[in-house]
Amino acid sequence: MRYVKLTIAYDGTAYAGWQIQPGEPTIQGVLEHALERIVGRRNRITASGRTDAGVHALGQVVGFQADTTLTPRLLQRALNAQLPADVAVLEAAEVEAGFHPIRDTLSKRYRYVIHNGAVRDVFARRYCWHISRPLDVAAMDEAAQCLLGTHDFRSFESSGAPRSDSRRTIYELTVLRADNGNDKVVIEIEADGFLYNMARAIVGSLVEVGRGAQPPAWMSKVLESQDRGRAGPTAPPEGLFLVKVKYRT
Amino acid sequence: MRYVKLTIAYDGTAYAGWQIQPGEPTIQGVLEHALERIVGRRNRITASGRTDAGVHALGQVVGFQADTTLTPRLLQRALNAQLPADVAVLEAAEVEAGFHPIRDTLSKRYRYVIHNGAVRDVFARRYCWHISRPLDVAAMDEAAQCLLGTHDFRSFESSGAPRSDSRRTIYELTVLRADNGNDKVVIEIEADGFLYNMARAIVGSLVEVGRGAQPPAWMSKVLESQDRGRAGPTAPPEGLFLVKVKYRT
Repeated sequence: MRYVKLTIAYDGTAYAGWQIQPGEPTIQGVLEHALERIVGRRNRITASGRTDAGVHALGQVVGFQADTTLTPRLLQRALNAQLPADVAVLEAAEVEAGFHPIRDTLSKRYRYVIHNGAVRDVFARRYCWHISRPLDVAAMDEAAQCLLGTHDFRSFESSGAPRSDSRRTIYELTVLRADNGNDKVVIEIEADGFLYNMARAIVGSLVEVGRGAQPPAWMSKVLESQDRGRAGPTAPPEGLFLVKVKYRT
Repeated sequence: MRYVKLTIAYDGTAYAGWQIQPGEPTIQGVLEHALERIVGRRNRITASGRTDAGVHALGQVVGFQADTTLTPRLLQRALNAQLPADVAVLEAAEVEAGFHPIRDTLSKRYRYVIHNGAVRDVFARRYCWHISRPLDVAAMDEAAQCLLGTHDFRSFESSGAPRSDSRRTIYELTVLRADNGNDKVVIEIEADGFLYNMARAIVGSLVEVGRGAQPPAWMSKVLESQDRGRAGPTAPPEGLFLVKVKYRT
């Protein structure tokens, strides 16, 4: 048995998220199905983390054990031939059997794209949140600064069973207006881990500041409150991309 | 009656092209339908030219007569509220009644996007032609040069009733590898007019050169032959964008 690590990209539009659910199209489902057609039996595939319905990935990392003599390169090609057009294997590598896609994570980086223009972008509509009124990007970036570092982020965790430990460390959080004249505002967040819907709750809160509904200083009050009801709404999934997962070694 | 000129963008993926056809979704159809819901009666809308099934527009120009008191700005908003998400009105203006979207054209610019990378781009798959083997972009650009200027382009006109005059003038034709690391090759063509499928036949021929099947000098032989059978295949529609239409005055 070999342990294979894949870096994959997917357009999440048509999927009910990463994790297999009966009767719903999922990324895990199409990937396990493609692998089964190649190696002849079903293998469980584990991702660095689940992504929600409609969320995209530029560099999700997944791993599985496989009883195959195919080289990683040939396995990549075979998978890409079997997968639907909205899922692609970017890289494949054989790694030591001790590797675990969740446990060995050092950090994850997400990108959130807002189209901040008067008229919708017909080509980007599946890949951004359209907000027509101009956002104050400088105020959003100022508000973001208080979230850097290690904090209890339960104010930005969607309801459901709260984790015993909701402390996380944000290494980077930037809000930039893309400089290529296409009216995009891009938010990049890198952290050692994310609570449920944390990235989208942070974006939804930053947008409250960007549209002038709250001053930048409001963000630190939300963080300190440890109350999800104080933060902004959860931003829609179509603007969110899992960009990169970093690992030890 | 006022004459209104619109600049529109559309994702052509779901459409059988610009022109109304019974039982098929068309850009003209959804636009005339949206206008009818606003002004209360059906008006014929004329485009600068038809685009084929699957072809996109960043800046198509269309015009119509309308019996409405709405300002162009309000008409734009009302149309965008009625139109499906894959069609958008970017600009609206009232123009003199003598304006004609086809007759008054000075030039049109098309862009063709090739994704020239080993693995498909899951986000751009509706908006490019995926060619995995590396293309020789310098050879393509060299081959393109002989097409500049005024020539009889019937070698690049798809079958159907040939026009009496197949002379056109190409003002610009460039082949560039986009410099942002996403493996895109972009072909830009501006001309005073295009024969049926001319842009896609030129791209298909340039790709023959790019993949090494023909030397750059082959292109001028194709042009001189005035024989469509000598040129390369017609490139697929999903990579083609009508970028801009220029008008006198």
